[in-house]
Amino acid sequence: MTNRLARADRIAADIDALAALTDPDRPWTRRAFTPRFLDGRAYMAKAMADAGLDVRIDTAGNMIGRRPGRVPGKGVLAVGSHSDTVPDGGRFDGIAGVVAGLEIARALRERGIELDHDFEVVDCLAEEVSIFGVSCVGSRAIAGVLPEDWLVRTADSLTLAEGIRGVGGDPARLAEAKRSDIAAFLELHIEQGPVLEAGRLDVGIVTAIAGITRVEIAVAGRADHAGTTPMTTRADALVAAAELVIAIERLALERSLGEAHFAATVGEFSILPGAANVVPSSARLLIDARAERRADMEAFLADLAGLVADIAGRRGVAIAEPRRVSDNWPTPSDAGLLSLMETAADTAGATHRRMASGAGHDMAFFARIAPAAMLFVPCRDGRSHSPDEWAEAEAIALGTDVLIETIRRLDARQDTE
Amino acid sequence: MTNRLARADRIAADIDALAALTDPDRPWTRRAFTPRFLDGRAYMAKAMADAGLDVRIDTAGNMIGRRPGRVPGKGVLAVGSHSDTVPDGGRFDGIAGVVAGLEIARALRERGIELDHDFEVVDCLAEEVSIFGVSCVGSRAIAGVLPEDWLVRTADSLTLAEGIRGVGGDPARLAEAKRSDIAAFLELHIEQGPVLEAGRLDVGIVTAIAGITRVEIAVAGRADHAGTTPMTTRADALVAAAELVIAIERLALERSLGEAHFAATVGEFSILPGAANVVPSSARLLIDARAERRADMEAFLADLAGLVADIAGRRGVAIAEPRRVSDNWPTPSDAGLLSLMETAADTAGATHRRMASGAGHDMAFFARIAPAAMLFVPCRDGRSHSPDEWAEAEAIALGTDVLIETIRRLDARQDTE
Repeated sequence: MTNRLARADRIAADIDALAALTDPDRPWTRRAFTPRFLDGRAYMAKAMADAGLDVRIDTAGNMIGRRPGRVPGKGVLAVGSHSDTVPDGGRFDGIAGVVAGLEIARALRERGIELDHDFEVVDCLAEEVSIFGVSCVGSRAIAGVLPEDWLVRTADSLTLAEGIRGVGGDPARLAEAKRSDIAAFLELHIEQGPVLEAGRLDVGIVTAIAGITRVEIAVAGRADHAGTTPMTTRADALVAAAELVIAIERLALERSLGEAHFAATVGEFSILPGAANVVPSSARLLIDARAERRADMEAFLADLAGLVADIAGRRGVAIAEPRRVSDNWPTPSDAGLLSLMETAADTAGATHRRMASGAGHDMAFFARIAPAAMLFVPCRDGRSHSPDEWAEAEAIALGTDVLIETIRRLDARQDTE
Repeated sequence: MTNRLARADRIAADIDALAALTDPDRPWTRRAFTPRFLDGRAYMAKAMADAGLDVRIDTAGNMIGRRPGRVPGKGVLAVGSHSDTVPDGGRFDGIAGVVAGLEIARALRERGIELDHDFEVVDCLAEEVSIFGVSCVGSRAIAGVLPEDWLVRTADSLTLAEGIRGVGGDPARLAEAKRSDIAAFLELHIEQGPVLEAGRLDVGIVTAIAGITRVEIAVAGRADHAGTTPMTTRADALVAAAELVIAIERLALERSLGEAHFAATVGEFSILPGAANVVPSSARLLIDARAERRADMEAFLADLAGLVADIAGRRGVAIAEPRRVSDNWPTPSDAGLLSLMETAADTAGATHRRMASGAGHDMAFFARIAPAAMLFVPCRDGRSHSPDEWAEAEAIALGTDVLIETIRRLDARQDTE
């Protein structure tokens, strides 16, 4: 064990305090734009100030704690994530990253460590899918890519613009949230998967955030009387769709055995008419596919098209061309940052591996405007977006030390702008 | 073409007249217990009377038209089906059988054919699943097996008892609807399947009404993040359930290639949580299995149990023991009636084959109290319970002739009680 800079007890105290700010009947819920979220933000603002940071809220509603560097104009080394949760969500997803940022500020001050760069902790607004049906509101704005028409989305008799104003932002001046002064962005996050725990590793060095492509498939068969229609003359949409589900899993499984992360899931599945005595006439599937490498996604989509044609032909059902509901490419981490984080992990005494993130994160938007990378810490049983989500404060503290070491090396590096 | 007794034009006129009595915005709908149903009953009462029948409504709400025979105490030769429809249902399902009965009465009178037996046309109340959620209300009462507790079922602020009273029955004296005087019951019905049409056959001699067993299966997997959970560590309830669907179809297909009718359909299928980015945690299937022979059903259920154990073991999901939601045994037709109908079909010049009914019918309840059998006539594309349901009046007339010939032979047969 090396000499730790980050303190697990302080991290645990922050996480417990934020967890307590939950809708009481459905722990742990603190959704963006709700009064509970503002309670969480008030806690964050005080904690940032106590850590010696200058606290502000940008025009997009992100809360930013800043510690000026010794050398003006060197740019900002930023650490961040989000403090909002999904409904019934966990106590660590996002929160661990913001608290790690806070603890970095405390540790730097405690040890008297000065940086040439400015240092910022960023609590990004509404990373999770919010009441407005959209996610990563704050980090999109920081990257300058928040769609203008999202501002008029409404929920609970509010527009998103009003929601941003309610957390202290100024949507009329949204463009000012865009940053061009960030020298590097780092995000610590729980893995939300079982890989680190299974490998008994301390941290994951995240090579990329996987691209996410969502594909809808509609199968049209023929409704027939379940009692009187011979098995040989049916066009059963459910059976055809079930073949698709099995084949999609097989394709994804094969592809996932390669070096790069790949997964595909049919998460939405429904049939019509859904009557006990009627052969199903139609089925709808929504596939969520995630690939670290775009080439893998393209190959999967090509395989899927072949699969659909084959099943439609054999089963006498009509399957429309798979429709891409959304299609986001992978976001690779900055290669230089990856090497630096590996060295930092070795220095901090943290065992590590490279791995992709199957989930989306704020980092994907920071990567559009700055060198960016992520660090995963293990979580229990890979559980996330669940009340059972759990990560040890010691594990978060060790990850925080890796970030501190990374920041010190970044700060000292000659080529950092 | 032999000399026809039944007239297709009169049959077509009845069917058209009843079809016109539909909820205007959703043809062809005349559900039991509705005002529209009473309009249909009024038409039937007049048509029965015009055919020389004495019309009454029994205590269970069945409408019965009676023509006394020459020899008291020989019993009743009854022909019947039902005049109610499913929502958006067809013009022929049930109606064809009641109209065939009417036409028999007209043809017998027209030709001056007297019978020793009494002859009755029975319009059974509520054969289709009614607003009260139950079916075959009238024929169950005739068999004395209408569950007493059904009478307090409610729908549209009515109890079933009140519904029966509303159509002219007397639920307090329901037991009096039970019959012990029926010498034979015959039901003509559209096939509701494609077999006769495909074989270019005039009529089907129905060997049995298949047993219907409904089985519910619940698959419990584990909800996981669709992006971060490796394909190899999932317990995906949907994929396991999809394997079940495919295997159930294979089992049913193999069994259906034997001599006796067999079919199995997964008509209800749902998953939870049904979110794009979450591996499905649970799935529910409802299987509708139909077998002409009980032994086939037992074998299918045994195979199903093995299947479930296999998939649960391989996939790491929990599948509860399949639950029999309902389990009705097959109802064989009376063997003597089958032979008689075949001879009658030959006499009437109708090509025929033996076949099972995959659907349930009023005949299944008459079979509990009397020798009973059914005759199928072809319908277009096997469509039924659909606005597209269609049968040619000529085809119904030919089937009616087969019934008339059957009735004459029954009436003449010495052994008929």
